[in-house]
Amino acid sequence: MRLSKTFIKTLRSAPKDEIAKNGALLTRAGYVHKEMAGVYDFLPLGLRVIENIKKIIREELNAIGCEEVLMATLQNPEPWEKTGRFSNQQVDIWFKTELSSGGELGLAPTHEEPVVQMMKNYISSYKDLPLYIYQFQTKFRNELRAKSGILRGREFLMKDLYSFHTSEEDLDRFYGEVEQAYERIFERVGLGDCTFETFASGGIFSKYSHEYQTFLPVGEDTVYYNTDKSVVLNKEVLLPEVLADLGVTREELEEATSAEVANIFKLKFKYSEPLELKFADADNSEKIVYMGCYGIGVSRLMGVIAEKFADEKGLVWPESVAPFRYHVIGIGEAGASVAEEFYAKHLDDALLDDRANVRPGEKFADAELMGLPYRIVFSDKTLAEGRAEVTVRASGEKKLVKIEEL
Amino acid sequence: MRLSKTFIKTLRSAPKDEIAKNGALLTRAGYVHKEMAGVYDFLPLGLRVIENIKKIIREELNAIGCEEVLMATLQNPEPWEKTGRFSNQQVDIWFKTELSSGGELGLAPTHEEPVVQMMKNYISSYKDLPLYIYQFQTKFRNELRAKSGILRGREFLMKDLYSFHTSEEDLDRFYGEVEQAYERIFERVGLGDCTFETFASGGIFSKYSHEYQTFLPVGEDTVYYNTDKSVVLNKEVLLPEVLADLGVTREELEEATSAEVANIFKLKFKYSEPLELKFADADNSEKIVYMGCYGIGVSRLMGVIAEKFADEKGLVWPESVAPFRYHVIGIGEAGASVAEEFYAKHLDDALLDDRANVRPGEKFADAELMGLPYRIVFSDKTLAEGRAEVTVRASGEKKLVKIEEL
Repeated sequence: MRLSKTFIKTLRSAPKDEIAKNGALLTRAGYVHKEMAGVYDFLPLGLRVIENIKKIIREELNAIGCEEVLMATLQNPEPWEKTGRFSNQQVDIWFKTELSSGGELGLAPTHEEPVVQMMKNYISSYKDLPLYIYQFQTKFRNELRAKSGILRGREFLMKDLYSFHTSEEDLDRFYGEVEQAYERIFERVGLGDCTFETFASGGIFSKYSHEYQTFLPVGEDTVYYNTDKSVVLNKEVLLPEVLADLGVTREELEEATSAEVANIFKLKFKYSEPLELKFADADNSEKIVYMGCYGIGVSRLMGVIAEKFADEKGLVWPESVAPFRYHVIGIGEAGASVAEEFYAKHLDDALLDDRANVRPGEKFADAELMGLPYRIVFSDKTLAEGRAEVTVRASGEKKLVKIEEL
Repeated sequence: MRLSKTFIKTLRSAPKDEIAKNGALLTRAGYVHKEMAGVYDFLPLGLRVIENIKKIIREELNAIGCEEVLMATLQNPEPWEKTGRFSNQQVDIWFKTELSSGGELGLAPTHEEPVVQMMKNYISSYKDLPLYIYQFQTKFRNELRAKSGILRGREFLMKDLYSFHTSEEDLDRFYGEVEQAYERIFERVGLGDCTFETFASGGIFSKYSHEYQTFLPVGEDTVYYNTDKSVVLNKEVLLPEVLADLGVTREELEEATSAEVANIFKLKFKYSEPLELKFADADNSEKIVYMGCYGIGVSRLMGVIAEKFADEKGLVWPESVAPFRYHVIGIGEAGASVAEEFYAKHLDDALLDDRANVRPGEKFADAELMGLPYRIVFSDKTLAEGRAEVTVRASGEKKLVKIEEL
């Protein structure tokens, strides 16, 4: 991408109402544009980060046999009424709308009910199971407040996976595979060493559910952890019987603030029973399908990564999700020409700051704000030695690298 | 994709209320699932078709310098009120909803207003122009009736492109480039010889706009055309003065039924004036930005392709958009084993029907219903000659091809 050709510009300031660091930095660096609280547009660089995160998630889910679909936003109330979740008392974050031909519709805040309803067309026998179905879909949640940038959206991108099984054992087996896939995903997006599978309330159908919490000072959750015992639990389950179950005492736990980036849940019959998703087992008896569901907040994950690694100069992207790997700057005529040559060889990996009439100092500041992993500067000074100056954004480390070794 | 592992199944019948051929066939063949009239889920095969169409559009738009973004669905009424388009009298297909913190929001039926509002942050000088910004985004339109399968959705996928210029000449230049890109797009998706740029009403800001109409018996539009004079016009502009402009007489025109798959429009100041999108020109005078907008109905295009090429046996996909190129069937033990070998070499291009306990006849019928371009059958009979039977879905042509030449 050529900075001279793109519409995005770094901005001196973020909108006044943008109090979250991720929202302010992503706006100033040209990754997102805020429409209103909790509603953002993704600009070319931001969309590339989202697509990079999706690609990693997609690869890991496909590897464990999951199938990708794309379900609708507009929700027929019927299946939601059967589970009791269409009522605003039960689910208080619905956006609802009216069909001009009559009747109320909802905007999907999640997709358990429609996916169960849909699968009634495709599951009838034990031979059809297990099945694992996921999508990347915009979810709508009518939050009363949304002041955390893209960490909490009224409209946000989520990956939601639903699994269907003949037995609790098979659900447990797949649940374990998803846990491993999630570990690989968080590792690959750069959050492996600060994201932890966390015990959380399981509701009425299982003792615990699991959240994935990334330790983050601006997170909305509080967790308690003990590194030696590899235990992390949400404050909501900080109860004597839970501590006994996990084999830790209150004194052994430290407190941390964190952001929930994912959660996984053994639904069992929670939705399949009221919606009558059944199968004929090998002995021909009719049974209810066991289910699990597994979410990852994709746009939230982008916000968490932005928030986590940013420093006083701007964003710092891990290589795996960065919109481009190289931020290329040529200084002087010769520098600009070698920068063009390098860019031509790395079109998919490089952002070229070829803006005329912008001083090098400003280009350097923009490179730091935008946060690509490697800044490569070609100037008369470096070229005299046949080299380029490479700066690692995360560490600030600078090296003069021979051009042929770049 | 292995048919034994995917959840999709061909269905004997479509839902009773599915009267459109595209909707019925796509449902029966396992490409889509209907949530309600005009609202569909895309299943793995359907999502692959959508992604193939998006890829073709993306390549052609990127080639003429367009930048991809992803804008929000939830719409702040403010910019729409400035253009008069938030009122249900003016735009009668709004879905509207209430924010729990107070205030009405709309679900975007199109994105002119928000994109103009957004660009006020990025356009200030003639040096910033021209710019071309597009997205693939779900649009919501509260249609009173929606009985045409995925040809007319209440929720549907659209590619919308907006261009920004300093002058009418520059708008005209880019408009011409988009016309050429659209020709390449319709050619590539397989509709080149039945899709025509069509004169349509231009509203009050220009004499004509252009639609792209695909000749299709179930289409909702009526067009008049003359092949020798390369003129196609929408019934809505079948007026003496228009015919005079185009140099044809009524007698020279034939009538056809067609589906609108795209439209392009010189907006000029229509939205930039009320929303005050201005730039400082080279002489420092303040001017209003010229705009164009260019849509393609992506999910509708999939429906048109399905509808256009289907025969009495099922779907017939052009290679460029087919979810897979090869539908692979092995008959007998040896056939199944060679089919597996072929599949392993063409994972991204092949669907393998490895279902146990399904008779070859049923597999052949499903292959015809699903409509992949080439059916490849390995059986004892063909293997005895070291060959496979390749059937071209579109023509029905059968060939025995040496396995090493496949």
